[in-house]
Amino acid sequence: MYEVEVKVPADLERVRARLDDVGATPTGSVVQEDTYYDAPHRSFSATDEALRIRTERSETGDGGTHITYKGPLVDDESKTREEVETAVGDAEKMDAVLTNLGFEAAATVRKERERFALDEYTITLDSVDDVGEYVEVETEVADERALESAREGAYDVLERLGLDPDDQLRTSYLELLLEA
Amino acid sequence: MYEVEVKVPADLERVRARLDDVGATPTGSVVQEDTYYDAPHRSFSATDEALRIRTERSETGDGGTHITYKGPLVDDESKTREEVETAVGDAEKMDAVLTNLGFEAAATVRKERERFALDEYTITLDSVDDVGEYVEVETEVADERALESAREGAYDVLERLGLDPDDQLRTSYLELLLEA
Repeated sequence: MYEVEVKVPADLERVRARLDDVGATPTGSVVQEDTYYDAPHRSFSATDEALRIRTERSETGDGGTHITYKGPLVDDESKTREEVETAVGDAEKMDAVLTNLGFEAAATVRKERERFALDEYTITLDSVDDVGEYVEVETEVADERALESAREGAYDVLERLGLDPDDQLRTSYLELLLEA
Repeated sequence: MYEVEVKVPADLERVRARLDDVGATPTGSVVQEDTYYDAPHRSFSATDEALRIRTERSETGDGGTHITYKGPLVDDESKTREEVETAVGDAEKMDAVLTNLGFEAAATVRKERERFALDEYTITLDSVDDVGEYVEVETEVADERALESAREGAYDVLERLGLDPDDQLRTSYLELLLEA
């Protein structure tokens, strides 16, 4: 599965006003706390990989913890990378497993996310602690050959929201936080 | 939490006949499939650590997957080591996370386990594919200072089952399988 994800800085109040006009459907909001790890045997910033434990809490109080590996970018034009993710029972214990193996927690990114559905796209309004406000448009495709048309569609969604695809930012929230 | 675990080779038919006499209560049986991983940055056989994904299925069809880190032995007299474990949602995806990070599946140990409770001890009758039959007696203590009396108690349980604590084997099923 390949993820197409395009992110631009945005004034979330303005975007919210347009979401209804384009026919996007609200699908809920969550608070996410993501801890990223450094590896003992290679530099993830050099290899462009990431290892993350995410703890999520929705407005209904539901939540869960997942571990995610993100591979290097496979496509330069958008932030497209292979992802593997599975649920874990206990965030602290998963952290202890990784720490015992020599991985080290590098930084924690906390954000509030409001999600909307529009056709096959998910639109996410992110308010990231100590970083700022961003809109992400994303979708998944099973086949690498479908990436380009999926990316064009994501650009179109941004334009309908009054945003400019040329503002696209390939920097992750983690990198933005570390630069802040 | 420290685990005290004493393991001896045994004829399981004979042990089963004595379990009722000593007042042990059957608590269920499971099939476990354990995949052990090699690390990319250190030799777990040299550091005496282990990283495992366990998939378990009980006779009632219930099951689950866990990831476990086992630290080096902290006590030479019995197999006592620090363990960290948490549930994971999907064994194949957890395997893919580890494999992407450079860990490699080294071997898979499959066994049927029948468990019994006796006071604060768990007695486990293990029939291990390609390895043989063993009895494990184990318990957990919160404090390192309680290890010695817990170990003495485990030896006592073995003797009541007609087994000899001097037959204690510190070799793991993984090592026994790799030697087989």
